[in-house]
Amino acid sequence: MAAKSLEPGMSLQLDANGKLRHFLSIDGLSRDLLTDILDTAESFAAVPEQSVKKVPLLRGKTIVNLFFEASTRTRTTFELAAKRLSADVLNINVNVSATVKGETLLDTLRNLQAMHADMFIVRHAQSGAAHFIAEHVQPHVSVINAGDGCHAHPTQAMLDMFTIRRHKQQFEKLTVTIIGDILHSRVARSQIDALNMLGTGEIRIVTPKTLLPAEAGTLGVQVHHELESGLRNADVVIMLRLQRERMAGALLPSAGEYFRLYGLTEEKLAAARDDVIIMHPGPINRGIEVDSQVADGPRSVILQQVSHGIAVRMAVMSMAMQQTIKEPG
Amino acid sequence: MAAKSLEPGMSLQLDANGKLRHFLSIDGLSRDLLTDILDTAESFAAVPEQSVKKVPLLRGKTIVNLFFEASTRTRTTFELAAKRLSADVLNINVNVSATVKGETLLDTLRNLQAMHADMFIVRHAQSGAAHFIAEHVQPHVSVINAGDGCHAHPTQAMLDMFTIRRHKQQFEKLTVTIIGDILHSRVARSQIDALNMLGTGEIRIVTPKTLLPAEAGTLGVQVHHELESGLRNADVVIMLRLQRERMAGALLPSAGEYFRLYGLTEEKLAAARDDVIIMHPGPINRGIEVDSQVADGPRSVILQQVSHGIAVRMAVMSMAMQQTIKEPG
Amino acid sequence: MAAKSLEPGMSLQLDANGKLRHFLSIDGLSRDLLTDILDTAESFAAVPEQSVKKVPLLRGKTIVNLFFEASTRTRTTFELAAKRLSADVLNINVNVSATVKGETLLDTLRNLQAMHADMFIVRHAQSGAAHFIAEHVQPHVSVINAGDGCHAHPTQAMLDMFTIRRHKQQFEKLTVTIIGDILHSRVARSQIDALNMLGTGEIRIVTPKTLLPAEAGTLGVQVHHELESGLRNADVVIMLRLQRERMAGALLPSAGEYFRLYGLTEEKLAAARDDVIIMHPGPINRGIEVDSQVADGPRSVILQQVSHGIAVRMAVMSMAMQQTIKEPG
Repeated sequence: MAAKSLEPGMSLQLDANGKLRHFLSIDGLSRDLLTDILDTAESFAAVPEQSVKKVPLLRGKTIVNLFFEASTRTRTTFELAAKRLSADVLNINVNVSATVKGETLLDTLRNLQAMHADMFIVRHAQSGAAHFIAEHVQPHVSVINAGDGCHAHPTQAMLDMFTIRRHKQQFEKLTVTIIGDILHSRVARSQIDALNMLGTGEIRIVTPKTLLPAEAGTLGVQVHHELESGLRNADVVIMLRLQRERMAGALLPSAGEYFRLYGLTEEKLAAARDDVIIMHPGPINRGIEVDSQVADGPRSVILQQVSHGIAVRMAVMSMAMQQTIKEPG
Repeated sequence: MAAKSLEPGMSLQLDANGKLRHFLSIDGLSRDLLTDILDTAESFAAVPEQSVKKVPLLRGKTIVNLFFEASTRTRTTFELAAKRLSADVLNINVNVSATVKGETLLDTLRNLQAMHADMFIVRHAQSGAAHFIAEHVQPHVSVINAGDGCHAHPTQAMLDMFTIRRHKQQFEKLTVTIIGDILHSRVARSQIDALNMLGTGEIRIVTPKTLLPAEAGTLGVQVHHELESGLRNADVVIMLRLQRERMAGALLPSAGEYFRLYGLTEEKLAAARDDVIIMHPGPINRGIEVDSQVADGPRSVILQQVSHGIAVRMAVMSMAMQQTIKEPG
Repeated sequence: MAAKSLEPGMSLQLDANGKLRHFLSIDGLSRDLLTDILDTAESFAAVPEQSVKKVPLLRGKTIVNLFFEASTRTRTTFELAAKRLSADVLNINVNVSATVKGETLLDTLRNLQAMHADMFIVRHAQSGAAHFIAEHVQPHVSVINAGDGCHAHPTQAMLDMFTIRRHKQQFEKLTVTIIGDILHSRVARSQIDALNMLGTGEIRIVTPKTLLPAEAGTLGVQVHHELESGLRNADVVIMLRLQRERMAGALLPSAGEYFRLYGLTEEKLAAARDDVIIMHPGPINRGIEVDSQVADGPRSVILQQVSHGIAVRMAVMSMAMQQTIKEPG
C-alpha cells in the first residue's frame, strides 16, 4: 500500500486527506475506501423503497453526463442516481468526430466548467479519457469514469462487489470465476482489481486463448481455457458480454461454437457450488454467453446487480461531491 | 357488464377492487370508471392556471416514456403531465431493430424495473405491445398505452370525451360523426369504444369503402360513405389524421380528390347542427382533411383538446399510481 | 428615443408600461432597459457560488427550448439558466423540413401554447423567426431570441456587455474592436447595437472587404480592413467565429491566409492597450481566428463570457416572465 500511495493514479483520485475526489479506476484505491463505498451504497439501497424515492443531498448541483460513446443503459443509471440525489442532470452526447483533437475536448470541458458544472460522468471509447479529463478539471469538479475503452469501468465493478458481499458477506473464502472475452473487457479489468483488493480467496478467468490478455500472468488470477475446470467449486460466476464484432474477426469461432464451449448452462453449472450466484453486466446475449434457464433461474442475481448499480452510483457521486464541497482544492 | 368483467382485458387493467391499475384500452372499462377518469381530469384542469403549475402527487416517482415509435408530440404531453405531478421522467427511445425478439424487449423491461421504475408509458408500432408489457411487469408497476399499432390510443379517446362533455354536458342525446381512415386508426377504435360505453345516442363513421374495417358491422356505429349524410344534424364532428402513405398505395385517390370528397369545409358543415363542435387529434393536414377556415373557426375545439390532454393524462397517471401505492399486487 | 418608441420592434418587445415582454433584438430597447438587464444579471451572478445553485423564481413554469437549428451549446446555457430558476424545461428540436410552411410552424406553436408553455426560447436559421413567433403568441407567453439567421443574437450581445462592464466599469471612454466576418454575423449585429446604445466611445470593425455588410456606413462604426490599425489602442477586442463554409465559397482565402491577415497573436496585440481584454463567442477555431497563446492568455476573458451567459439568460428570462405574470396582455 505504501508504494501504491505514490502512484499518479492514487493522487489523482484522492485528495490530500485520502478521501475520494474522482472515481476513475479501482487501481489506486485502498481496501478501506472500497469498503467505505460499499457501506455508503448500503445506506442508499433503501431509498427506492421509500414512497418518495429521493434524498436532497445534491440539490442544486449540476451533473453532466458527458458521453462520447452512446450507451442508453449506463447513461440511464447515472441519470436516475443523480435525480434521486436531487441533482440537476445535463445529458451531452458528444460527436466524437467533432473532438478529434485533445484541445477541442478541453475547450468543451472548460466551457461546461464555466457554466458551473460540478461533476462529469465520462464515457469514452478511448482508454484513459476519464483520467485525462480529471487531470484538467478545476479543483471543485469531480470526474466519474463510466467506462473508457478497454481500460476500466469501476462503478460496474463496485456494483458487482456490492452484489457479492450481499450474498456471501465476505470475500476471503470465495472462489470467483470470470468467463469470456477478458482481453477487450474493461469490466473484467476493474472486477479483478476490486476482487484482489478486497482479498478474494481465488480469482479465475476462463477464456479462449485468443482472448487472453498478454499480461494475464501479473493479474493475480488463475487462467483456465476450459469451462469445467474453471467452474469447479466456484461460489460466484461472472459472465462477460460477448461483443458480436469479435466473431467477425479471426478471434472467435461462430456464436454456436462459442456457446458450446463457454456458454453457461444448468448442466455445466453442476460443477460449481450449490449456492453459486450467477452474474452478468448486461445486456445479455441469450444463447451465446448464457442459456435462458440459467439467466432467469434462481441462482441468477443479474437484475439485483442492476438495482445495486443505482445505489453504488449514488454512493460514489455523493462521496466525491461531499469531499469537494468541504475541501475544494 | 357482468360478462365483460370476466374478459382478460378487464382483469389486466383493474385490480381486485376494480380500481385502475393499467390503462391499455377503453375496452374492458366500465362507464363508472370512464366517468371517474373524466371527473379526476376535471380537478387537474385548473392546475395550469395556478402560478406554480405543479402538484406534489407523484414526487419521487420514476416515470419512463418507453417509445418504440417516435412521437415528439405525444411524448411531450406525457412528459409535461408527469412533471406537473412532480414525478421524475426518463425518456427512452428504443430502436425497434434492437428489440426484434420478444425476449429482448422483456430484458429491457426487467432492467428498467430493477432500476425502480414505477410506470411505463408505452408507444409501439405493433398492436398489443402495451398489453404484452402489462402482462409482464411487477405488481407495483403501471403501464399506460400511448398508442399501439392500429389497436388503441385510449388517453387520446378520453381527452376527446372530456372535450365533448365540457361542451355538451352529456352523451345520451348526441350524434357524433367520425370522418376518415377508420381502418388504420387506433384513435377511432378507442373513440368508438368510449362513445359506446358512455351511452352516446348515435355514432356515425364516414369513410371511403377502401378504408372501412371488415368488422364495422359489430362496432355499434352507422356507416356512411358520403360526407353530407354523415354530417346531417351532427353535434360533434371528429376528423382523423390522414396518413400520407395511404395515398401512395391503392387505398386512396390523390390528396385533392380526398379533400373534395371528405375534406371538411364551412359549406359542407352547414348540414350539421349550428352548435356543432369540430375535433381533430392533430397534427392537422390543412387542405386535406380540413379547410383552415374550419380548423381555425369558432366551432373548432382542436386546441382545447390539446390542453385537456394534459389534464386527462395527469388523471390517468395519478389514478393508476395511487392504486399501486396503496395496494401493491 | 422618442422616434424609436414608435417602431414595431419596440412595441413588440415591451409592454404598455415599457417593461420587457419578449427579448428579440437589442434594436428597439433603451439604454435604461439594457442597464436594467445588466444589473439584474449581476444579482444572479452569485447564484452558482451558492451551495444550492437554484432560486425558486420560475418554479412551476414551463420553458420550451424550440430549436429549429441544432446548437447543443446555446441550448445547454438556456437549459441551465432555466433549471437554476427552478423552471421545468422541455427541449424540442424541430426538423426544419417538417415546418416549411409558416402555417405548420404556427400549428406547432399553438399546440405548445395549448399545453400551457410559458416561454419559448427560439433558435432558427431564418432571420425574423423569433419576431414572427412573438407576433403570434398568446398575451401571457414570452419569446426569447436565441439566434435567428444573420439577424440577431441578443443574449450573446448582453453577456458580452456584462463582461465588458465588469472589467471596464463604463462604456463611454472605450474603444471596442470587432474582428471577423461581420457580413454573416448575427452576434456582431447585436453587439454593435448594444455598444452604440450603451454609449461606447468608439466602435471599430475589422473585416475583409468581401465580408463587409453593404449598410456598414449606417452602423455607427469605423471600418478597418487591416488588423494593425483596427487594434491600435483598443480596450476591448471581440473576435467572431469564422464559419468554415465561407472558405469553400469565393469570399475568403485559405484558413492559413486568414490567420496571417486577421488571426489574433500576441505580437499583433501589442498595438492594443496593455489592459485590453480579449473576447470570443465560442467555440474557438484555434489557429484560425486566434492563436492559443492569446485565447488561453491572461487577457482572455472568453470563459468568463460563458459564465456570464448563464447569469444574463437568467436575468432576461425572469424579467420577461415577471412582467407577464403581473400584467398579462
